[in-house]
Amino acid sequence: MAEEEDLAERLTTFYTTISDDLDRCMAFWLKHSHDDVNGGFFTCLEADGRVYDERKFCWLQCRQVWTYARLYQEMPRFQLPHILEAARKGADFVMKYVKEPNTSKCFLSLTREGQPIKSQRTIFSESFYVMAMAEMYRVTKDDVYKKEAMAMMKQIVQWVKVDGSGLGPRLPPPVPTSSLAVPMILLMLIDELTIMDPQHSAGYNDLAEWCLQDVLKHVQRGGVVLENVSEDGEELPGSVGRLMNPGHAIETGWVLLEQAVNKNKPELKQVALETFIMESFNRGWDDDYGGLFYFIDADDRPPVQLEWDMKLWWPHCESMVAFLMAYKHTGEHKYLKQFAKVFDYSYSHFVDFKQGEWFGYLSREGNVKINAKGGEWKGCFHVPRTLMLCEQMLKELLQKQGQT
Amino acid sequence: MAEEEDLAERLTTFYTTISDDLDRCMAFWLKHSHDDVNGGFFTCLEADGRVYDERKFCWLQCRQVWTYARLYQEMPRFQLPHILEAARKGADFVMKYVKEPNTSKCFLSLTREGQPIKSQRTIFSESFYVMAMAEMYRVTKDDVYKKEAMAMMKQIVQWVKVDGSGLGPRLPPPVPTSSLAVPMILLMLIDELTIMDPQHSAGYNDLAEWCLQDVLKHVQRGGVVLENVSEDGEELPGSVGRLMNPGHAIETGWVLLEQAVNKNKPELKQVALETFIMESFNRGWDDDYGGLFYFIDADDRPPVQLEWDMKLWWPHCESMVAFLMAYKHTGEHKYLKQFAKVFDYSYSHFVDFKQGEWFGYLSREGNVKINAKGGEWKGCFHVPRTLMLCEQMLKELLQKQGQT
Repeated sequence: MAEEEDLAERLTTFYTTISDDLDRCMAFWLKHSHDDVNGGFFTCLEADGRVYDERKFCWLQCRQVWTYARLYQEMPRFQLPHILEAARKGADFVMKYVKEPNTSKCFLSLTREGQPIKSQRTIFSESFYVMAMAEMYRVTKDDVYKKEAMAMMKQIVQWVKVDGSGLGPRLPPPVPTSSLAVPMILLMLIDELTIMDPQHSAGYNDLAEWCLQDVLKHVQRGGVVLENVSEDGEELPGSVGRLMNPGHAIETGWVLLEQAVNKNKPELKQVALETFIMESFNRGWDDDYGGLFYFIDADDRPPVQLEWDMKLWWPHCESMVAFLMAYKHTGEHKYLKQFAKVFDYSYSHFVDFKQGEWFGYLSREGNVKINAKGGEWKGCFHVPRTLMLCEQMLKELLQKQGQT
Repeated sequence: MAEEEDLAERLTTFYTTISDDLDRCMAFWLKHSHDDVNGGFFTCLEADGRVYDERKFCWLQCRQVWTYARLYQEMPRFQLPHILEAARKGADFVMKYVKEPNTSKCFLSLTREGQPIKSQRTIFSESFYVMAMAEMYRVTKDDVYKKEAMAMMKQIVQWVKVDGSGLGPRLPPPVPTSSLAVPMILLMLIDELTIMDPQHSAGYNDLAEWCLQDVLKHVQRGGVVLENVSEDGEELPGSVGRLMNPGHAIETGWVLLEQAVNKNKPELKQVALETFIMESFNRGWDDDYGGLFYFIDADDRPPVQLEWDMKLWWPHCESMVAFLMAYKHTGEHKYLKQFAKVFDYSYSHFVDFKQGEWFGYLSREGNVKINAKGGEWKGCFHVPRTLMLCEQMLKELLQKQGQT
C-alpha cells in the first residue's frame, strides 16, 4: 500500500502544479491572442506568443469564447471584468462572421477580417457555435445567446437525423457509416445545453439515448473502441474500419462516465471505465518512448495517417481528465496511477513552464516538432478546460481527504 | 579533380544499382498489386506485398497504367506480353469506373469493386487519366485511348482557364491564388500528349506559354520557389504564402529544364537549374539527419503541416531525376555530386533490397515510420519512373564516356 499512499500524497502537488499552469496558460492567451483591430482571436502563435498567421479558425473562435465564459462562471479567480469583456467581444465576432445567416452553415476558417475561406461538410463548426452561445447565455443571461444556441442545435439535429443535404454535396457512402465524433459531440452539446438550462434536459432524452446507442456501436471485438463502424454496428473493412484514435475514445469515455454517474447506469459506467478509457489507453500508450499515439491500427497493420505516431497534446489532456474522474467516482487506485503517468509525461514534455501553454506536437520520441503554442487546430480550449476540470476535481478530492 | 573522377567512376555502379532496383520494383508490383477478381490495382501493400486495404485510388490506378505502358514502350526488357496485358486491363478498369460519364469528373477513390467513395474539387485525377490514356494510345495505337485523352484534356483546360464550376462548389478565395501544382501538371500533360503525337505540339503552344508564366510567378524573393502565390504573382500573407514544398519545386525544375533544352531557352534553363532545383534542394535538405524535408516555411516560422519534417520517397525520386538531368545537360560536376548525395541517402534509407520497392515514409531521423510499400498516395509510379529515367540517362552518359 506504500505506492497508494505516495500517490495520495501527490494530490497536493498535482493541485498546485495544475493551478499554476492554468494561470500561466490563461495569461498567455489573454496577452497574445486578442485581435484588437478586427475582433476575434489569433491562434497561430509561436512559442513566445508572436502571431505567425492571422487567419481565424472557426472551431477555435467558438471554443475560446466558451473557455473564457466557463472560467468566468466557474472559477472565482477568473471572474474578472476583462475576461467577460473578451468573451463578449469574441462572441460578437463569432455571431457576425462564423455563421452564414441564410443557411446557418458555419465556416471552417476566415481571413483576419472575417471573410470566409473554407467550409466543411460536417457539423463541427456548428457544434462549437452552440457551445459558445450556450455558455455565454449561462454567464450573461442575455437571451440573444440562448436563441442562437437553441436554433443552431435544432439545425444540427435536423442535419444529423433527418436530412444532411444542407451540409453540402457528398457522394453517398458505399456503406452507411457512423463516425464516433458525431454522437460524441452531440452528447457534449446536450450536456452543455442542460448546464445552460437544466429544464432542457428532458427534451433531449430521446436524442441522448440515440447518441448513446450510436456511441456503443463503436465497441467491437468484445471491447475495443473503433473510430468508424457501419450504421448497423458492424466493423467496416480495411484501414477505415480498423482505425483507433485512443485520445478520442478516452474523451468519449469521460463524457459517458459523467452520463453514467448522473443517470445512475452502472453498466454504462463499467463500459466507460474499462473499455473506452482503460483499454483505449493501454492500446494507445507507447511503451518505448511514453505518450499516447495519435492513431493506431487495431491489427497493427500499416497506419494510413502519416502523423500516427506523434504525441499530441489533447489526447494527454483527455486522459488526465478521464483518469482523475475515474478515480473520483470509484476511489480505485489504478486510475490515479494512470493519471500520474500521464501527468508526469505531460509535465516533462508538453508544458512550457516559462512562457505558458503547452506545445502541441511532439515526435514519437517526445521532442517538440512544431515550435508553437497554437495553430489551425490548437487554441485556447483543451489545455485550460483540462486544467480547470482537474483543478476542480483535485480540490474536491483534497477536501474529502481532509475530512477523513 | 580527384573527386570528379571518383564520381564519374561511380556512374557504372549507379547504373547497375538502379537497373537492378527497377527489376525488383516491377517484380513487386506485378506480383502483388493486381486484382484478378475486380480488375484495377491494389496499392495498399505491406512491406512484403500483403494487401492491407482493398480500396482503389484513382490517381494510382491511372499512374500504374501509365508506368506499365511507358516501360513496355521504352525499355526493351519490359516489352513483355503480360505487362501490356496488365496495362490494358488496368485501362479498362480506369475507363469503366474512374470517370463519371456525364460530367467527365473523375473520382478520387473507389471500393474494390469500383463504386465511388470520394471526389475532389481539383483536376488531378483527371490529369492522370489523360496520362494513362495517352500512353496507352502510344503503345497500342488504339484510337479509343487517344479519343479519351484528348477529350479529357479539353475538359481540364476548360475547367482551369474558362470555368471551374464543374469541379464542384467552392467558396471564392479571398485572394485569387495560383497553386504551383496546376500549371506544373498541365506542362506534364502537354509533354505527354506531344510524346503521344508530336503533331499536337503546336496546338498547345499558347497553353504551354501560359503555364510557363504561371509557374514562374512562384519565384519570389529574388529566387525562392513558393508553393502558393496570388494570381497577380505576389506573395500571399501567412503560412500559405510562406509554404515551400522542395520536392515539388525540384520536380517542376526538371520539367522546366526539359522544356528549356527542347525549345532552346537559355534563361529558362538557368532558372530551372539554379532556382527550382538547386536553391530548393539546398533549402530543403536536412543538415542534421540528411534527406529532404517534406514542407518548410520560407522564414523558418512554425510549419502547419504535422508531417513537415518527414522524409518522403518521392522528393528524393524527383531530386535524383533532376540532378542527373542537370548533369547530363551541363556536364557540371556539382550536379552529379548532389545526385550522388541523394542516391546515397535513398539507397541507405528507402530501398528494400530484399522485397523490392521503396519504403515511402521515414521519420526525420530516417527510420521507417510506415512499414508499407504503398498506400493511398504511393503506388507504382514515382519509383519506377525515376529508375527508368535515371537508367536511360546513365546509359547515355556511360555511352558518351565510352566514346571519349
